[in-house]
Amino acid sequence: MSDERPIGVFDSGIGGLTVVKALRDLLPNENLSYLGDTARVPYGPKSPETVQRYAIELAEMLTKEKAKALVVACNTVSSVALPALTEKFPVPVIGVIEPGARAALAASRNRRIGVIGTRATIRSGAYEKALQAEDPNVHVISRACPLLVPLIEEGLLGDDVTEQIIRRYLEPLLEDEIDTLVLGCTHYPLLTGAIASVLRRQIMIVDSAQNCARAVEQMLDQESLRAAPLNNGSLHVALTDSADNFLNVARDALQLQFGDIEIRVLS
Amino acid sequence: MSDERPIGVFDSGIGGLTVVKALRDLLPNENLSYLGDTARVPYGPKSPETVQRYAIELAEMLTKEKAKALVVACNTVSSVALPALTEKFPVPVIGVIEPGARAALAASRNRRIGVIGTRATIRSGAYEKALQAEDPNVHVISRACPLLVPLIEEGLLGDDVTEQIIRRYLEPLLEDEIDTLVLGCTHYPLLTGAIASVLRRQIMIVDSAQNCARAVEQMLDQESLRAAPLNNGSLHVALTDSADNFLNVARDALQLQFGDIEIRVLS
Repeated sequence: MSDERPIGVFDSGIGGLTVVKALRDLLPNENLSYLGDTARVPYGPKSPETVQRYAIELAEMLTKEKAKALVVACNTVSSVALPALTEKFPVPVIGVIEPGARAALAASRNRRIGVIGTRATIRSGAYEKALQAEDPNVHVISRACPLLVPLIEEGLLGDDVTEQIIRRYLEPLLEDEIDTLVLGCTHYPLLTGAIASVLRRQIMIVDSAQNCARAVEQMLDQESLRAAPLNNGSLHVALTDSADNFLNVARDALQLQFGDIEIRVLS
Repeated sequence: MSDERPIGVFDSGIGGLTVVKALRDLLPNENLSYLGDTARVPYGPKSPETVQRYAIELAEMLTKEKAKALVVACNTVSSVALPALTEKFPVPVIGVIEPGARAALAASRNRRIGVIGTRATIRSGAYEKALQAEDPNVHVISRACPLLVPLIEEGLLGDDVTEQIIRRYLEPLLEDEIDTLVLGCTHYPLLTGAIASVLRRQIMIVDSAQNCARAVEQMLDQESLRAAPLNNGSLHVALTDSADNFLNVARDALQLQFGDIEIRVLS
């Protein structure tokens, strides 16, 4: 038995396309429906109540299209709205935080793990909690890196200035001898190259987009929700407001192919 | 006769406090009511229709509090919503673009004027139109500087990296021999020092916050709406969602004094 209903993926904006890319690479037979809330991006500075309300609206739009599972491709939403979404919707809900935390614990030898993310994600302490829930002895060093998203959205992926900013952000984590770094923001996989060049030493980079995709694969198997092996997976992209230049940056850097963007005005 | 009703000032977020600062310095007797839409900031990437709808909502909130005039302390809103606001509300409406454009034309000798702003403001061509409406022979060179707002919000007002980014953004304008530079974003007055140090030569900086305040003063006189000369002007600040660190950056850099922030949840 197979299930060709789409996997619904949503984010506050366009950054979640890194999760879409990881899903397409790992699960090429699945139909994906992406919804990015570009009308209200970014969620980071908004209160948890507002973020929960918005997340439920987006999830409702996707479940009305018969999504068989919901993937929260956004750290801010994952950190504050996962319980509310799981309670409200009858389909499996997968976020980015737990899969990333589990992969970091599997990778780390010295139990010193660094986490970088937006100001909101770091302030929420979500990765710290997820890591310490699995291993109370893990030492977590987190750092908010609010300039990385705008640098990525400007397309300065391999730029000198970006490298300087990354170096400055990561310095205290390196001094603290981390051996694993969690990219706790769905934009950051676009900077993996630049981050790796600053890290130099043997530090494992944990990409939460890839690990989220692995968690989705596992869930599909457990719940018998896989599409047929011969299904040629489709990708549909909808946004709540017209996209800016970052859509081109992401599409090019991720080598993602999709047709016209649907614009869905929020009521 | 005097009129102590407040002047309602609104912005997509906290950047408009530079206009509040300019108003307080120039019109210390006026009561000011500031409303920042931090729940939906930034407006830049949103469509003109969405921005108009949000602007009308904010203006309605301020006019319900008997605002005697509306000051649009936001370039994005000024560039797309001024006609709609002027039509809908019976009080005078002042934006930031026309006052800035007029001041630039008064300052320029060689009629070569540079304009910097967010991607949305530059794309709208609003300054270009306002400048050329007054002088069809003026040569306007505009440049979107999307990294400046995040750098300001990080508090990196005098940082090396900020100076490098400013230098890179301004290089083509300097090559084009501008003699006047319009700061077409309400955040940018916080970078006046850094921008001046990069400009070096005799280039006039036109601060749209200060020029907006002058336009408000003129309008109050014309419409006989001034508060009494002995009135000790108050400042009330309301936001649509709790503020992040940038509120502290702005308050400190502007040396603005106000009491508790009121949070007004949008329905």
